[in-house]
Amino acid sequence: MIQHRISLETFEVPTGTPVFDWTVPKEWNVRDAYIKGPDGKKVVDFQECNLHLLNYSAPIRATMPLSALKNHLFTIPEKPDWIPYRTSYYKEDWGFCLSHNQMLALEDGSYEVCIDSTLEEGHLTYGECYLPGRSTDEVLFSCHTCHPSLANDNLSGLAVTTFLAQFLSERGLHYSYRILFVPGTIGAITWLARNREAVGRIRHGLVLTCLGDKGPFHYKKSRQGDAEIDRVAAHVLLHYGGSREILEFSPYGYDERQYCSPGFNLQVGCLMRSVWGSFPEYHTSADDLSFIQPPHLAESLRICVAIVDVLEENRRYRNLNPYCEPQLGRRGLYGSTGGEGIESEVNARLWVLNLSDGEHSLLDIAERSGLSFSAIKCAAQILCESNLLEMMPEEGNRDKCKPRAHGRSPARALIERYPR
Amino acid sequence: MIQHRISLETFEVPTGTPVFDWTVPKEWNVRDAYIKGPDGKKVVDFQECNLHLLNYSAPIRATMPLSALKNHLFTIPEKPDWIPYRTSYYKEDWGFCLSHNQMLALEDGSYEVCIDSTLEEGHLTYGECYLPGRSTDEVLFSCHTCHPSLANDNLSGLAVTTFLAQFLSERGLHYSYRILFVPGTIGAITWLARNREAVGRIRHGLVLTCLGDKGPFHYKKSRQGDAEIDRVAAHVLLHYGGSREILEFSPYGYDERQYCSPGFNLQVGCLMRSVWGSFPEYHTSADDLSFIQPPHLAESLRICVAIVDVLEENRRYRNLNPYCEPQLGRRGLYGSTGGEGIESEVNARLWVLNLSDGEHSLLDIAERSGLSFSAIKCAAQILCESNLLEMMPEEGNRDKCKPRAHGRSPARALIERYPR
Amino acid sequence: MIQHRISLETFEVPTGTPVFDWTVPKEWNVRDAYIKGPDGKKVVDFQECNLHLLNYSAPIRATMPLSALKNHLFTIPEKPDWIPYRTSYYKEDWGFCLSHNQMLALEDGSYEVCIDSTLEEGHLTYGECYLPGRSTDEVLFSCHTCHPSLANDNLSGLAVTTFLAQFLSERGLHYSYRILFVPGTIGAITWLARNREAVGRIRHGLVLTCLGDKGPFHYKKSRQGDAEIDRVAAHVLLHYGGSREILEFSPYGYDERQYCSPGFNLQVGCLMRSVWGSFPEYHTSADDLSFIQPPHLAESLRICVAIVDVLEENRRYRNLNPYCEPQLGRRGLYGSTGGEGIESEVNARLWVLNLSDGEHSLLDIAERSGLSFSAIKCAAQILCESNLLEMMPEEGNRDKCKPRAHGRSPARALIERYPR
Repeated sequence: MIQHRISLETFEVPTGTPVFDWTVPKEWNVRDAYIKGPDGKKVVDFQECNLHLLNYSAPIRATMPLSALKNHLFTIPEKPDWIPYRTSYYKEDWGFCLSHNQMLALEDGSYEVCIDSTLEEGHLTYGECYLPGRSTDEVLFSCHTCHPSLANDNLSGLAVTTFLAQFLSERGLHYSYRILFVPGTIGAITWLARNREAVGRIRHGLVLTCLGDKGPFHYKKSRQGDAEIDRVAAHVLLHYGGSREILEFSPYGYDERQYCSPGFNLQVGCLMRSVWGSFPEYHTSADDLSFIQPPHLAESLRICVAIVDVLEENRRYRNLNPYCEPQLGRRGLYGSTGGEGIESEVNARLWVLNLSDGEHSLLDIAERSGLSFSAIKCAAQILCESNLLEMMPEEGNRDKCKPRAHGRSPARALIERYPR
Repeated sequence: MIQHRISLETFEVPTGTPVFDWTVPKEWNVRDAYIKGPDGKKVVDFQECNLHLLNYSAPIRATMPLSALKNHLFTIPEKPDWIPYRTSYYKEDWGFCLSHNQMLALEDGSYEVCIDSTLEEGHLTYGECYLPGRSTDEVLFSCHTCHPSLANDNLSGLAVTTFLAQFLSERGLHYSYRILFVPGTIGAITWLARNREAVGRIRHGLVLTCLGDKGPFHYKKSRQGDAEIDRVAAHVLLHYGGSREILEFSPYGYDERQYCSPGFNLQVGCLMRSVWGSFPEYHTSADDLSFIQPPHLAESLRICVAIVDVLEENRRYRNLNPYCEPQLGRRGLYGSTGGEGIESEVNARLWVLNLSDGEHSLLDIAERSGLSFSAIKCAAQILCESNLLEMMPEEGNRDKCKPRAHGRSPARALIERYPR
Repeated sequence: MIQHRISLETFEVPTGTPVFDWTVPKEWNVRDAYIKGPDGKKVVDFQECNLHLLNYSAPIRATMPLSALKNHLFTIPEKPDWIPYRTSYYKEDWGFCLSHNQMLALEDGSYEVCIDSTLEEGHLTYGECYLPGRSTDEVLFSCHTCHPSLANDNLSGLAVTTFLAQFLSERGLHYSYRILFVPGTIGAITWLARNREAVGRIRHGLVLTCLGDKGPFHYKKSRQGDAEIDRVAAHVLLHYGGSREILEFSPYGYDERQYCSPGFNLQVGCLMRSVWGSFPEYHTSADDLSFIQPPHLAESLRICVAIVDVLEENRRYRNLNPYCEPQLGRRGLYGSTGGEGIESEVNARLWVLNLSDGEHSLLDIAERSGLSFSAIKCAAQILCESNLLEMMPEEGNRDKCKPRAHGRSPARALIERYPR
């Protein structure tokens, strides 16, 4: 479905492939799974809802009393109508998830359990969309694909990321964009292990998840904490209005855990509406299509686009008349009858002229002036057209996002450590 | 009048002289200006109040109906008794300012308009007072001279600056002082364009304006934001007591706009009582002599003098007994009967001894200890007399106010850009 | 008594020995001192309470009227039952301290004053306990011994320091520990003057005083203000819970004044419960054994031990799998059934892995994560055992506490200044 919208390349990585400290696991496929009650009727049926099966369950066919079966049943007593989502990726096990009421209704007797699954040599699958820009420097967007049937904590990220990629493919780009659709954790690790050169070109990035509910936006900072993406996201959310929260980095969460591991230390944050684990529907059957709404998804997409806009345009400029103010009036850039306050457009122009010494980026100017990036960008454009300003050459802009003095070059360190 | 008090040199810069991006404009002189009503009586008369004429109005002699005249009349409907102050420096126009009630009283009919002004080749005039000190490093004070008949937003700055110059001329000076009386904007630009070497010697500076009203003090920081003058002004206002506010730099305001343009980036702030535009009398006939009061002017002068005192004395010293405390008691610098708290004089001496490692200035010590600069300065003096302290040589003090590492040398850059 | 518990070496420094700007004073010994009233009975008797005698009083035998005697009597009118503690170390004088009520009861008449003291060539005595660790880098603990009969402001420091030394002598040590029992001011100055090489090895230190009362803990920062000991003490007090206060450095107080004098600028703070001068019993007979309580002393000792624990263990580590997270699950370090929150132990492990890039110490990680140092240390230990982490070599840890770039090397500067 995603490939109908964007040019997505899929990759198949064989079971057993070593990826850093990990190994691509066996592939899990399910043909059927159910529990039949003492009367022979199915009481839990994978065909009805794929959450019913503990993910990565090993195959089994057995008959057992209810008391034995119960050791393999998972419910949420506090939400007796919801089915939990559970996994056992890295410990071989089997089990079923069901609503607490469903479990309470089970009568004593003998139950037939069938999990017709395979855990065999196969592949890990991920998708990648690469959109080349004028620069080989890259911006990364990453979302996870591994939570079946969950809407906010899976599908919303896929949807917003897909539409964002579509949007990006339709405009001219300064940066190149790399957009990943990967299984959480192992997928990100696999991509990082297989793309060591590309990693070194990533300048900014965002993990996108939980973007369809009605909660306020949350931006979790990168490990660096003062990366350009951190400032851009905070600026965009501030000027977008409404309530929002900026969260400090922590090493638990989504795939920013991998992108921000110390060997990479990429400038990658995470954009969410409600934070995983903070809403009761999280990892349950209640995180369904009714929990996410088109207007919330659209608003999330708008925020992503606004972040891209700032990243794309955030450059340093040089005031070509740095000694005193240039005479804006004779260029039609200033009101000529003094005595009243100045308009905000003129104010933005004065800020851009005053701080464009080759050291302040447009975002620096927006932050210091309190004006929006778009107002500052607009002022810079008009001043360029009036030959009062010029963009700094690319070299003068590269170090705007260079690793800080005490940081390492992740690409070089990585290549030295894992030579081909 | 100012020359009766201080040694002021005046400069005449011819119309047409290029000054950076600007050109010295034509000189405007007014012999007479009035509006006569249908009955031939003057209803608006420049001889009564020079605010009645839109400043820089081109000459005109015409008769027109009231409806046409009204396009050239300026009033303040919210303050119907006040005459606004309006200018049209950079767009050729003509007009009259009058009270709203005056305008409402005008009856339909034919009006005779006379503006007997000249806009011709002439000069821009500014005054400069230079007071040499032991160092060639300079402190700049600048006030504007261009608002006719306005008391707070013109005359108060002239008055305080004049008295400050008089005060400075009567004492020994460490720094050299350059005190400018210039028309706003074009005057400061003209001075900067004509004094490129002097600019490179300016270490600190203040624009002085709106110093006669009863409002609390406001200090607007330099573009650098952490310049020595910024810290000195904040310290003086803090210890002076009373309410006051420290404002961040912005590129709109008075001539700090020019001194802090990126090519100069001088350490120049702006001292005001009420801030321009924040009081209703601003740029109206109500900003008259009754709006400013001698005690407020005197208090403003005291603040300026206190700032000068700190600038003059803010040096680094070196503790000559840096290993353990020296024995203050045997030098009569300490109470000898323990058991009570120490007095604030002793406390100041201990602070000066503890932080005088050649890296902390007296202002650093005052800020860290919470004591006033004068208490710290007094302690340093007594310790010097006791041979426990010595002033660092001048080189060790110069970098106290040197441009920060990432700054440019404004003088050098300016000279390279505009060779003679 | 202290030597019964720890291996304490005592040093005797002769009167007249020059120590920096000071000289070791004459030794003061008292055989007896009293005042006899008109009826020949002792009204003030040194044998009853040694606070009765102004410390360092010169010998005298005289008879005088009450009016003359009163010039030499010290009382506390606000606390009429308490005897003040007074000294006159550096000005030759004599006097008696008594309760205000005692003084009010004195009747007119002739009084016999006897101070049978000696002020003669002798020695200054101090004690030193050196506990060698694996490193020659040292941690300093210092307490004062000079306030006779005062419990909180003398004995509590001696007691806690003694028990701390005993505790340290029973465990393996990374740092070497130097524990000083010195008369205030002159004792610390004497030790510093005589131990110039040792001074250069001091990496951290604490002055211990006023540790037996029931007040909340106060930690006064070193002159540097961001020294490792400052951060360690703040962290320990924060995680210990209860109310506590962190005080900025000031050059008045206990012997941190000497250790933090600018020539040394040692990383030495001061740990107290109630702050000197802030409790009415300070420097009076009411600062007696009833004012300090074993539980308060024990709690103080626990804080000291906790500070030592952090200093001893605060190292930098290196994540041996810095590219992506290592797979904790297969090592038994992670829960394998997803869907719930993670436990705090796993969280600590993730933080340690994420920040162990050779640049962050365990304290850095504890501060950033908000977890306790002990939780972080425990995580580091388990990760080391799993070969996921290794301690940085000693060189990589030394600069963790090296003097900052703009600091001087105190040892070198001292040796150059005072060659043997």
